[in-house]
Amino acid sequence: MVTIAVDAMGGDKAPVPEVEGAIHAAKQYGHRVILVGDRQTIQEHLDGHATARKLPIEIHHTSERITMHDHAAKAARTKKDSSMHICARLVADGKADGYVSAGNTGACMAIAKMVLGKVPGVDRPALSGVFPTLKGSPVVVVDVGANVDCEPKMLAQFALMGEIYSRLVLKVKSPRVGLLSIGEEEHKGNSLTKETTPLLKELDFNFIGNVEGRDLFSGGVDVVVCDGFVGNVALKVSEGLVELIRNLLKESLAATLSSKIGYVLSRSAYKDFKKRLDYSEIGGAPLLGLKGVCIICHGRSDSNAIKNAIRSAAEFASSHINQRIKEELALIKTGLAKTG
Amino acid sequence: MVTIAVDAMGGDKAPVPEVEGAIHAAKQYGHRVILVGDRQTIQEHLDGHATARKLPIEIHHTSERITMHDHAAKAARTKKDSSMHICARLVADGKADGYVSAGNTGACMAIAKMVLGKVPGVDRPALSGVFPTLKGSPVVVVDVGANVDCEPKMLAQFALMGEIYSRLVLKVKSPRVGLLSIGEEEHKGNSLTKETTPLLKELDFNFIGNVEGRDLFSGGVDVVVCDGFVGNVALKVSEGLVELIRNLLKESLAATLSSKIGYVLSRSAYKDFKKRLDYSEIGGAPLLGLKGVCIICHGRSDSNAIKNAIRSAAEFASSHINQRIKEELALIKTGLAKTG
Repeated sequence: MVTIAVDAMGGDKAPVPEVEGAIHAAKQYGHRVILVGDRQTIQEHLDGHATARKLPIEIHHTSERITMHDHAAKAARTKKDSSMHICARLVADGKADGYVSAGNTGACMAIAKMVLGKVPGVDRPALSGVFPTLKGSPVVVVDVGANVDCEPKMLAQFALMGEIYSRLVLKVKSPRVGLLSIGEEEHKGNSLTKETTPLLKELDFNFIGNVEGRDLFSGGVDVVVCDGFVGNVALKVSEGLVELIRNLLKESLAATLSSKIGYVLSRSAYKDFKKRLDYSEIGGAPLLGLKGVCIICHGRSDSNAIKNAIRSAAEFASSHINQRIKEELALIKTGLAKTG
Repeated sequence: MVTIAVDAMGGDKAPVPEVEGAIHAAKQYGHRVILVGDRQTIQEHLDGHATARKLPIEIHHTSERITMHDHAAKAARTKKDSSMHICARLVADGKADGYVSAGNTGACMAIAKMVLGKVPGVDRPALSGVFPTLKGSPVVVVDVGANVDCEPKMLAQFALMGEIYSRLVLKVKSPRVGLLSIGEEEHKGNSLTKETTPLLKELDFNFIGNVEGRDLFSGGVDVVVCDGFVGNVALKVSEGLVELIRNLLKESLAATLSSKIGYVLSRSAYKDFKKRLDYSEIGGAPLLGLKGVCIICHGRSDSNAIKNAIRSAAEFASSHINQRIKEELALIKTGLAKTG
């Protein structure tokens, strides 16, 4: 049985989505879940769910909590009994197979690096976003915010880690890896992308060259590589636009009587539409390149997002992806030259 | 009467949208339009429109044409009788007040810089995207692809030019200027944004600090500053996502009979929704910092986009924005320190 620790004090509405997400995951997937945080608060919320008692859910009490306002590095250093710290500690000590947190992203990354440590050969662990696409498997975007100023070698490592993730966890055969740039042609890009291209060509995977922003969700690429600044902007532009479009559509549909009736008749279509755009179906962003499994969720995650993040953490753990990253990096000789 | 030159050989479907856009603009705004390109082809298309004869539309014949496959810098240097070159020449010679092209963007920028020249004090002309927002005026994003590797000083100039554009052309009072980054707090960003912030604080305008990708279309910021790589990715992610969402919605609505009927009843709502998202209502991206007016359009522009780009060019010309950029840059002492 896979055991996943959940930071129950992390998200904006903690512990409600965390407790409910744990219940759904335990019920649906049979995973064992350790809810980490203030025992009394968590117990009260668990008691509100009649079915929770029979499920493999435990509480691990902690006295401290890291908030969204905490300074990331400082909180990581000082709040050693925070729920976030203890989650990482449970994984490092082999008491959990992975953990999930919807708390302060910066602090979560700092703690994960500090407590779990990096896979040998990895310069910088990377936050990989996983997104729904128009057709086929979700797309993995690395990095989406952990590393803002990157060198070509770092991007090559992101590509390698993202490719392994897509292959082992998302079960994509021979994932297509693309470099995010401003034109398909190799000479279109900035100095970082131009220097990264030769490194990616040397790697032993299916590199398809430059891709553009518009290809992100088309299903034509499985792994998109970029520095964390660009990835984070792309991610947040998408979030903002989805919200904007939903609002515009709602306003337009409410404007006349016939369109209101039309809306009622096509309500199932909207539910379907909403579900297909719903990031919570995917759950969270794995932090790649660590000696342990850590899935970071949006602060606004609902119980469905937490449930799916627990599922992702379990899949991640049973794929032994970090071990594979270590092995594949070791195979690559200095300067990321092609193996064999 | 304002005179605008239009590159009639530029876009993917040239000269159809260019000729029709010119007719609409001449009719609706009373502008004089010079269609630049192959005389015979343009004349044939004009002849197809009964009302065109009475409008202030002329043809300026050219023998060459720059295609999307041409190498930008090489085409700019060698094809001196291209429609793009002649458009710029007509403006430089004072025979037109501005020009519009939907052709090869790289070539268009190279020719504009070469033929029109830069405004004194501007290091790099910048391509500014103008986008609809949820409420209020459109937002100006500078740069969206002309300059991919930027220094802090360049971003400060982009901010200044974008602010003047928003104030003089879009008539926004005291435009709010934001720096595109990955968090609202000043310490969140990459080395470029961190070094740019102090320069923007010194400038004499309404700088509101960092903005995130999700703020782009919210209406909470009037001018968004970023390097051309990040701006281009943001722009193309948006384009791709709007297309994806339209397709998903169409598929969902066609799935059941009741939702099909619902669609028919709410058709006016979709028209309204589509129009509010429609970039062609805005028309094109002005190239700021040149001694002349150049509006660059998307290769896929339709006649409505061309019409609106002609309107933009005329507004741009009568605002004397380049003169103002020159004056405001001259006021700023070395290192872009605060005036006065």
